[in-house]
Amino acid sequence: MVSALLFDVFGTVVDWRSGVIRDVTELARARGAEVDAAEFADAWRGGYAPAMDLVRRGELPWTKLDDLHRRTLDRLLAEFGLGGLSEEEKNWLNTCWHRLDPWPDSVPGLRRLKERFVIAAFSNGNVSLLVDLARRADLPWDFVFSAELFRHYKPDPECYRGAVELLSLTPPEVMLVAAHNNDLQAAAGQGLATAFVARPAEGGPDRHRDRAPGGDYTCVAAGLEDLAELLG
Amino acid sequence: MVSALLFDVFGTVVDWRSGVIRDVTELARARGAEVDAAEFADAWRGGYAPAMDLVRRGELPWTKLDDLHRRTLDRLLAEFGLGGLSEEEKNWLNTCWHRLDPWPDSVPGLRRLKERFVIAAFSNGNVSLLVDLARRADLPWDFVFSAELFRHYKPDPECYRGAVELLSLTPPEVMLVAAHNNDLQAAAGQGLATAFVARPAEGGPDRHRDRAPGGDYTCVAAGLEDLAELLG
Repeated sequence: MVSALLFDVFGTVVDWRSGVIRDVTELARARGAEVDAAEFADAWRGGYAPAMDLVRRGELPWTKLDDLHRRTLDRLLAEFGLGGLSEEEKNWLNTCWHRLDPWPDSVPGLRRLKERFVIAAFSNGNVSLLVDLARRADLPWDFVFSAELFRHYKPDPECYRGAVELLSLTPPEVMLVAAHNNDLQAAAGQGLATAFVARPAEGGPDRHRDRAPGGDYTCVAAGLEDLAELLG
Repeated sequence: MVSALLFDVFGTVVDWRSGVIRDVTELARARGAEVDAAEFADAWRGGYAPAMDLVRRGELPWTKLDDLHRRTLDRLLAEFGLGGLSEEEKNWLNTCWHRLDPWPDSVPGLRRLKERFVIAAFSNGNVSLLVDLARRADLPWDFVFSAELFRHYKPDPECYRGAVELLSLTPPEVMLVAAHNNDLQAAAGQGLATAFVARPAEGGPDRHRDRAPGGDYTCVAAGLEDLAELLG
């Protein structure tokens, strides 16, 4: 019955933590600064939900994820002893989110799934960020659903309903594939099918949230190649 | 300076007239009906601008192009002696717009252009129509801009402005590639770069509009491979 698969991107398809650590490390080394890059990455990602909440509560007008990332970055640079970067360096670091690598199974899994299903990104990243990611990592999307199209961040219901409407499908014909329980629960709440993909390395050794499925999902997979097996 | 190319789709990238003639012919043959399929295709396409104008003037609420096509189709079937089709046959015929073939230079040209530019569809087709077309014809889009995202049909300025904003670029960094002067003139009016692509076979032997560039465009090409040459 499912004919289209929506994929959460950060954490589910690409490994944000290693990519951010890589670029923070490179910049710190070039500046001769001592920075705990893993702590920096976790703090940066930690600023993500609170920043979106400002938009959700109307305390900020609609703001692209690139600009929310930059707000958090500007705060962290001083805290982590990386003050005094040039605008060019700050911009380069902020766009590290455009240069993340996919998990090893992501591209082969997506290629297999695309033979049978419409496959689309479904992410809080802004359009240009998601386009850059897909070009660099060769993600073979049929379509890219960005929160920016709906001016609502996941897990707002407008995102799930909006994607189903643009696909000209009904909710049970669309499956959300994600490594995050809150995203999957919001999708299920709108009547979509759901697939939990375990990404135990996503959040680093100290994060225990989302290590296991926290709901009654349509399927549970160990990665995107495994999902292709499960969906035949 | 240009970093992203937007492509009009119907007529510029795919050959709508041959595809519609093919499927009308097939259905008429199956029904044993005598239909001038070329005249049918031209009449169907002829209903396109007036139907969008109903939306533009607010006489119809936002309506997907598939549904505008169906309104016109329902009128033409009786006129052309194809009354009494089943709902399944009517739906199959209406989705002939999802099954159009690209011009021979389209896919090789897009592949070359994609190496250097972000390439995106930019069409009045609804999202699911454009996704079906791209999957079937292997169009390697980085993104698909549909009028449905903006709830405005080209040449309304909201479409051109909206695409530039979603790309996080400025208008001169974006080029519209199209075979139609009205589309290119609207893009130029919003500050975009423009490329006219000659598609003399688009409208059949009796259509003379758009055979030549009708404005001072950034470039003029004989097809998408030729455009790739021109843009280096």
